[in-house]
Amino acid sequence: MRMLDLIIKKRNNLPLTQEEFNFIAQGAAKETLPDYQLSAFLMACFLNPLSKRETAMLTKAMAHSGERLEFKNIKIPTVDKHSTGGVGDGISLALAPLVACAGVAVPMMSGRGLGHTGGTLDKLESMKGFQVRVKTSNIYKQMKALGLCMFGQTSALAPADKKLYALRDATGTVENRPLITASILSKKYAEGVKSLFIDVKYGSGAFMQNYRDAKELAKTLVETAKMLGLKCCALLTDMDTPLGRAVGNANEMRQSIEILKGNKNIAPDFYELLIESAAYMLLISGKEKNLNKARAIVEKILESGKALKKFKEMLKWQGANPAIADNPGKYLKDSKHCALIKADKAGFITRLTARTVGEAAVLLGAGRGKMEDKIAFGAGIWLDKKLGDKVKKGDIIAHIYADDTKRLADGVALFKQAYNIGAKRPKTRPLVAEVIK
Amino acid sequence: MRMLDLIIKKRNNLPLTQEEFNFIAQGAAKETLPDYQLSAFLMACFLNPLSKRETAMLTKAMAHSGERLEFKNIKIPTVDKHSTGGVGDGISLALAPLVACAGVAVPMMSGRGLGHTGGTLDKLESMKGFQVRVKTSNIYKQMKALGLCMFGQTSALAPADKKLYALRDATGTVENRPLITASILSKKYAEGVKSLFIDVKYGSGAFMQNYRDAKELAKTLVETAKMLGLKCCALLTDMDTPLGRAVGNANEMRQSIEILKGNKNIAPDFYELLIESAAYMLLISGKEKNLNKARAIVEKILESGKALKKFKEMLKWQGANPAIADNPGKYLKDSKHCALIKADKAGFITRLTARTVGEAAVLLGAGRGKMEDKIAFGAGIWLDKKLGDKVKKGDIIAHIYADDTKRLADGVALFKQAYNIGAKRPKTRPLVAEVIK
Repeated sequence: MRMLDLIIKKRNNLPLTQEEFNFIAQGAAKETLPDYQLSAFLMACFLNPLSKRETAMLTKAMAHSGERLEFKNIKIPTVDKHSTGGVGDGISLALAPLVACAGVAVPMMSGRGLGHTGGTLDKLESMKGFQVRVKTSNIYKQMKALGLCMFGQTSALAPADKKLYALRDATGTVENRPLITASILSKKYAEGVKSLFIDVKYGSGAFMQNYRDAKELAKTLVETAKMLGLKCCALLTDMDTPLGRAVGNANEMRQSIEILKGNKNIAPDFYELLIESAAYMLLISGKEKNLNKARAIVEKILESGKALKKFKEMLKWQGANPAIADNPGKYLKDSKHCALIKADKAGFITRLTARTVGEAAVLLGAGRGKMEDKIAFGAGIWLDKKLGDKVKKGDIIAHIYADDTKRLADGVALFKQAYNIGAKRPKTRPLVAEVIK
Repeated sequence: MRMLDLIIKKRNNLPLTQEEFNFIAQGAAKETLPDYQLSAFLMACFLNPLSKRETAMLTKAMAHSGERLEFKNIKIPTVDKHSTGGVGDGISLALAPLVACAGVAVPMMSGRGLGHTGGTLDKLESMKGFQVRVKTSNIYKQMKALGLCMFGQTSALAPADKKLYALRDATGTVENRPLITASILSKKYAEGVKSLFIDVKYGSGAFMQNYRDAKELAKTLVETAKMLGLKCCALLTDMDTPLGRAVGNANEMRQSIEILKGNKNIAPDFYELLIESAAYMLLISGKEKNLNKARAIVEKILESGKALKKFKEMLKWQGANPAIADNPGKYLKDSKHCALIKADKAGFITRLTARTVGEAAVLLGAGRGKMEDKIAFGAGIWLDKKLGDKVKKGDIIAHIYADDTKRLADGVALFKQAYNIGAKRPKTRPLVAEVIK
């Protein structure tokens, strides 16, 4: 098989076979194919998009380009979650331990933040000592004992994706539904779970800003996952305004711990999405059949404190002090400086733009402009007011945290562009817009 | 300027500016842009083809990516020729000295053969000592003194083309009219001639097999050359059957020398195209206004022996023995072995397929399968019979030459598939199908 012929085939918009995708994925993973051929192929795939069948074949090929996990010893259903990413989207931190208490095993493989969106691994690492790099043998051990492990993608899993993603990033071939789908699902398929819950966000702070694009992506993801034999469903959820109150790593960790403690009023939208996500995970994993019943189960688990206990056990397994969960104020890193944003008039928060809030958080040091940047775990934003909230003049709208005064000033200046106060209460969107099964 | 943005622009089918093409051509020439970005860009150009304006801009950018020749001291018109290549197309060997005798200066920059098509440089090198690598200062000197120089493209001229062509070859982006045009014309534009004659061949032995594709290419070449300020015209000529009688390097050199000696009956089709090409070169260079008069001028020059004399002077300037032209049989390399192909029945040659003849010549050692292959100068084919010729049983159809018996046998076997003998005289195509001005 010659790569040149496969490029020409795709260039001519002819369908490739599983064997041909395998050749490409192996070549990418083992670096036996030159970058210039892979990138020409990716551009051909961008302009002559892969069919659904081809997308599933590419996903499979990429998943098989390296090691695959197999949870053979786990007799209960396995489920993972993927979010397309957003601002304040720290749901996974509470979701994984919660679902793991409901008789479902949760190997949760996560990534790091880039740009205005945060990453679960960074949030976990705001807890001193927490290890996100877990050896495969330890993942198996912990899963067997605890039914829960939160870890980072290793270079052994779906290595073709790492190579192809880096090339896509440098060659303008990122925003393509089949390629996005193959990238997301190849890692989950390699991870060896039997079911997958997907949160596809839309709006200013999301990867897909427009609802239609997000819905198309959700449909492609769910269909492709099913073609690969995974049970799958997706929620389309709002990311035009931040989720919850916390933005930034230690901040989001604190919020999740509060939620795990049963303090659901701290961030009602966060709580709502947590319960919905957990309920759908029970549904698709086959653990529960009825959505309302699934909701009731996870709400009850949360109230009982079991999820918090599971979370603390995970901290212990993964190198962090479980006492963090008892007293986050003591253990989680604070920032050196804090500024208050106050309302300069009375009215309603008529706009609170997720993307601008996320970008302000990056300026504060909570995120990365490029992959090599270091994160300040204590930096971030606490949203005392949310979209639609009534404010009086002088009310605190947000706390802004940073480790140095320059970053603080930059973050404050940008945050001030993220919101408006107006006279009329704005219409707000429903948090969950649609379910794609 | 960021290459990523330019790739995305072309991917989205938006037009690039001259400045942007300059950035890309400079980056390709100086290797400051990574191959994987260039190849993604080339695939985007393939699938979203460049407009005529963009083609001219890319050509200019590539021409300016290195040195440019300038024939300031030459007060007479300058003209070069480009052929898209074929089998037995050794016209240039006689054409350049012929036109150079008519008061026009001919700096002729040529390439090497690859695949079933031959290359002028290889044919010239079949003459012992002939130097095709000529220093720029020597090109100027020889042009001033002789009005004629035949040389190979140096890496100093249009280096962006070398880089981009190599990538196109490896990424399935060769067969694209705007990219082909930019590649051909950038070298000629960098060469500094004021007018350019183009022979676009069509048929089995041509790069463009189909007439319509060839015509479109000819039109794009002529229009783009004119946009760049070059005087230009193109002939569409037949390459379904080989041109002339000789295929292979020393063989074609011999045939050209015979023609230069006035022996025009040796290969009437070759002679016809030679005269047409030379006449059009006088026309576009501005030397002559009337085509018939131009034809008469070059026929007279040929008969007078002046062109042969000019050729011999060139041999002297470029390191070969002028006596080669007096006695090619003595000086040009013969092959070690020869086989005769004889007619097994009487009739007419109803098919003589240029591509198969060219491929047989490669098997014999006259051409290259890949660029690194060595050429056997004496290897090749002499077509005693041509398409449409009447044959008696036992007539010699061709002489087949090779240096080793294995190659000879392979070449003979393939050559036998190149022709048919039938009962009826076949219709033949006109040699020159159309003129594109």
